[in-house]
Amino acid sequence: MNIIKNESLEVIKARIRQQTEKTVDPQVEARVADIIKNVRTNGDAALKEYGEKFDGVSLDKLKVTDEQIEEAFNQVDPDVIKALEKAARNIRSFHKLEVGESFEDSPSDGVIRGTKVTPLSAVGIYVPGGTAAYPSSVLMNAIPAKIAGVENIIMVTPPQKDGLNQAVLAAAKIAGVDRIYQVGGAQAIAALAYGTESIPQVDKITGPGNAYVATAKRDVYGQVDIDMIAGPSEIGILADDSARAKDVAADLLSQAEHDVNARAILITNSETLAYEVSEEVEEQLKILPREAIARKAIENNGFIYLVDTVDLMIDLMNAVAPEHLEIQLENAYNYIAKIKNAGSVFLGKYASEPLGDYLAGPNHILPTGGTARFSSPLGVWDFQKRIQYLQYSDKALAADALDVTVLAREEGLEAHARAIESREK
Amino acid sequence: MNIIKNESLEVIKARIRQQTEKTVDPQVEARVADIIKNVRTNGDAALKEYGEKFDGVSLDKLKVTDEQIEEAFNQVDPDVIKALEKAARNIRSFHKLEVGESFEDSPSDGVIRGTKVTPLSAVGIYVPGGTAAYPSSVLMNAIPAKIAGVENIIMVTPPQKDGLNQAVLAAAKIAGVDRIYQVGGAQAIAALAYGTESIPQVDKITGPGNAYVATAKRDVYGQVDIDMIAGPSEIGILADDSARAKDVAADLLSQAEHDVNARAILITNSETLAYEVSEEVEEQLKILPREAIARKAIENNGFIYLVDTVDLMIDLMNAVAPEHLEIQLENAYNYIAKIKNAGSVFLGKYASEPLGDYLAGPNHILPTGGTARFSSPLGVWDFQKRIQYLQYSDKALAADALDVTVLAREEGLEAHARAIESREK
Repeated sequence: MNIIKNESLEVIKARIRQQTEKTVDPQVEARVADIIKNVRTNGDAALKEYGEKFDGVSLDKLKVTDEQIEEAFNQVDPDVIKALEKAARNIRSFHKLEVGESFEDSPSDGVIRGTKVTPLSAVGIYVPGGTAAYPSSVLMNAIPAKIAGVENIIMVTPPQKDGLNQAVLAAAKIAGVDRIYQVGGAQAIAALAYGTESIPQVDKITGPGNAYVATAKRDVYGQVDIDMIAGPSEIGILADDSARAKDVAADLLSQAEHDVNARAILITNSETLAYEVSEEVEEQLKILPREAIARKAIENNGFIYLVDTVDLMIDLMNAVAPEHLEIQLENAYNYIAKIKNAGSVFLGKYASEPLGDYLAGPNHILPTGGTARFSSPLGVWDFQKRIQYLQYSDKALAADALDVTVLAREEGLEAHARAIESREK
Repeated sequence: MNIIKNESLEVIKARIRQQTEKTVDPQVEARVADIIKNVRTNGDAALKEYGEKFDGVSLDKLKVTDEQIEEAFNQVDPDVIKALEKAARNIRSFHKLEVGESFEDSPSDGVIRGTKVTPLSAVGIYVPGGTAAYPSSVLMNAIPAKIAGVENIIMVTPPQKDGLNQAVLAAAKIAGVDRIYQVGGAQAIAALAYGTESIPQVDKITGPGNAYVATAKRDVYGQVDIDMIAGPSEIGILADDSARAKDVAADLLSQAEHDVNARAILITNSETLAYEVSEEVEEQLKILPREAIARKAIENNGFIYLVDTVDLMIDLMNAVAPEHLEIQLENAYNYIAKIKNAGSVFLGKYASEPLGDYLAGPNHILPTGGTARFSSPLGVWDFQKRIQYLQYSDKALAADALDVTVLAREEGLEAHARAIESREK
């Protein structure tokens, strides 16, 4: 791995910013715009046409039947089912803590103010096909929506020549997905955003996908809500002499194997650890099934930064704003207070990042590409909205009327002032 | 106003959907892309160039000085200051109820899971110039950010030939805005998203603006967060025989005067009220200073729907998903439970919508164009994010290790499994 020392923080931060800047591909944008237009005009027919063209699968009906789902559930290895069910229990118990609460107050006689928390009514979940079909992601998307109270959870996933991923269908059943359709790519996003004969229009679309899916999500944003534009996976590790090089290396590689553009960053004040991790990464890479992918990721975006103090380490990591952050320092828990930007933080030697990917309960759909500066993990809050309300009595209105009319007229909005005065007559 | 009766719900809903569909202007998009590129390349110089070209104002420094703000505060009518300060108190007391809380649990021995709620570090607020420079909106944007704990609240507003709006500067002082820059349009959005020599990069941009501002916000979304793409203002009123036609008409006009594209919709089961409101609107229009604007809005998007029952009225209004919703029915409070889609609800005869625009405390920056299906009013939640964390002991890891490795291998992610097993060796 690239070991970088004696570099100024500003230079490092500039490199980090550059790596995380948003890019768009005009060709992809133009093709996605065409696909969306076609789906809006031709509905299901367009979806079936794209299924043949892009996925090589000809379908009579887009909807997956209950029998297909049941059969998949029964065919999946019972150990996998058991693990998925345990994960689902943990995800449920954690996400129940996220449920937003309605509130109401009465600041003065005759005035009632409040906010009602209410679920979205329909949500679409995108699940990629092929090797990126992850049953764990089905749980992470659908369970928070279910806990929020969403009544229509619609899943879409591209048709596959050799049949849909059975574990994905089983996870959908465990998570409580209401309906599944075999449609992928930008066409699936268009169908969810605008509705077709068979696929209902939803209020929000979540889930990761390729460049076409991401571009389509950006395109329909405003028509529906979206979770985020997910970028390549990232891990940042803060470690000192107390960390074990082989664990640190294994965790860096657990993200690197996702994608050639994945980012793996170690920031340490220990020169010994820096060199040991670099060697361990090379050793472990050699015997990894996905060596080719992980090696490219490490070559492209694998960095070990050597700095003098723990404070500098933290400052730099806050600039990275990593999706996943491991703190392998003594008394790791105490550093939470200093973390400003990260998706999910893993504390101590034993909280290896894959625990969060699969089992512990916190969400694994997290802000990438530096967006942890302003974004949160996917959660129940993504599937709830708030409605404000206000009630005034006649006396309460009289007490505030003058102030309202003064401000309305200051802004040149006479009809606003008259609406208040209409009640006084 | 157009009175529509005996029309099927499906036809009405289709019309509503059509009215609220997102549209984009490719010419505006291309010009905005150029502006953003220029600002990223040339920084402050580009901003000053656009200030001369678009606003006709030549500036040495973009930053508004403390002396300018103090002077503005002293020159504004004391009644306006008093009303702004009262509004600020109400906005503060309401939005304090919105502060998100961190949580933590320990589902089993050796496992700690939690979520830390933390403020964004820098936020940009856009305030339009000219007649759309609203001091009330400054309060509504900045106070929730302040309560969230944002340390850098940056305001941008276009330079004006005859000087900045004094009440806007006074409101910024009352709300606790940290810095103000004289820059508007797409160039202001670009400056906030990417930073220039004088304007710091922020994490989120909020506030309304024209088509250029809206397009630029959509463009930089992902690089920074944005609040929403605000559309024309809307009011929906549910009223029966108990409502007074002159109040209903005045409230419809209070939104219609904003913009020729504003929407004003009354849904009622009272034919008498429908005709009385229609006549009242015409009478009140004749003597309104902004008659031309309001008349166009009423002609374009003013509708009175006459339906048979209160349940149908509510069903239809949920399809409208209006920004502002007034319920002028007996026992209005009891209907909150049935409202699924609305930004802010006003209950009873006396809660005229302008109370919410100016004084009562709930936010007036609300989802428009049907986006109340999935969006919330601007609130403290917009300026806070969540960071998850997880700690495992060695024994807790041992108890979960097998399930994690089973799932990782099911997904073909061997390095994930090995990261867990690395700890066991």
